[in-house]
Amino acid sequence: MTLSPTPRSTIKRGKKRAVTERSALHEVLDAGLVCHLAVVVDGAPVVLPTGYGRDGDTLYLHGSTGARTLREAEGGVPVSVAVTLLDGIVYARSLFNHSMNYRCAVVHGTAVPVLDPETKTHALKVLTEHLSPGSWDYARQPTARELAATAVLALDLTEASVKIRSGPPGDDDEDVAESTAWAGVLPIRTSYGEPEPCPRLTGDTALPEHVSGRR
Amino acid sequence: MTLSPTPRSTIKRGKKRAVTERSALHEVLDAGLVCHLAVVVDGAPVVLPTGYGRDGDTLYLHGSTGARTLREAEGGVPVSVAVTLLDGIVYARSLFNHSMNYRCAVVHGTAVPVLDPETKTHALKVLTEHLSPGSWDYARQPTARELAATAVLALDLTEASVKIRSGPPGDDDEDVAESTAWAGVLPIRTSYGEPEPCPRLTGDTALPEHVSGRR
Repeated sequence: MTLSPTPRSTIKRGKKRAVTERSALHEVLDAGLVCHLAVVVDGAPVVLPTGYGRDGDTLYLHGSTGARTLREAEGGVPVSVAVTLLDGIVYARSLFNHSMNYRCAVVHGTAVPVLDPETKTHALKVLTEHLSPGSWDYARQPTARELAATAVLALDLTEASVKIRSGPPGDDDEDVAESTAWAGVLPIRTSYGEPEPCPRLTGDTALPEHVSGRR
Repeated sequence: MTLSPTPRSTIKRGKKRAVTERSALHEVLDAGLVCHLAVVVDGAPVVLPTGYGRDGDTLYLHGSTGARTLREAEGGVPVSVAVTLLDGIVYARSLFNHSMNYRCAVVHGTAVPVLDPETKTHALKVLTEHLSPGSWDYARQPTARELAATAVLALDLTEASVKIRSGPPGDDDEDVAESTAWAGVLPIRTSYGEPEPCPRLTGDTALPEHVSGRR
């Protein structure tokens, strides 16, 4: 299945970097941790980072960090969501061809609030398992009051685009022939450090495998 | 110097996480590599990742990855720019208090195109030295044609906000007393891997210190 070819999701710049497989969209969304959500407020754009989770071709967006943005969206307003993963700094022989290696998914659509309690609980499970796989069945479940205090939006993934740059610098042949400069890629690695226990933990609480084993 | 208190840059949610020092804004912007730029196109928001660099209280934005967005902005249109750094996954005793540790800067303003060649060259130096410190004096300088093919926007940092979450989970006292669950933070580390030389390099090109020594 390929991604949609609407005008705004058709990549006009850097077409060689566009990827049209829906599986690539899913992979980028599943690999990220935070998205950037843009809405229009009083005619001006507002962008904020927020948590998300994917269930099939539905993206659920979390409300706690962007309440103003999400209130604007509650009527079902247009949003744009980007998830970007940085893979490396591309050092070229020319400054012009310096670049980054990255994977980026951009979704356009109308975000609608998730209000039905059963769907909302499902959405929160999707969001939680994206942020912290294994936590849903481990930590204390949300109370009715906590559920009410949480805003969740649903966004259909129909209209989306994926752009990926990978590999060495794309220098001009002339620069390759004439330059004495080093060129290549400095990879960017993201990893998890040693878990830092909460100072309020009692001494005998074991670190669970879903935290210690996270890669 | 503190950040501006306009309505849209005044943080309404999570005030305890708001930081009002201008130095904090500079630190977050200087620590990031990519920003998310939002503009309004035909009444709908569009968000895209792009490179940037800071010079004092001016943010320069790079054009090559967001030409459509930047064309919209050339008249000097409203933009919103976010830079987000993820520092850790916050595992709480309750699902409700699961969170992330992060540093985020959001800038609102009117982006204007940088057209004057001298200013544009300066802006490209700022952008290059942000992406790859040391490259400006090392790699081949842009030609007039390359300069013309590059779009650069300038955005004033006057109207901006910074939000930072750090430290352990903020569980309710009741959960701390009653829960047997582990709680704490799984730090997220970003680092550089081994440089990967361009396959078209000739054998005797030394890896320069500005790449090998980058941390």
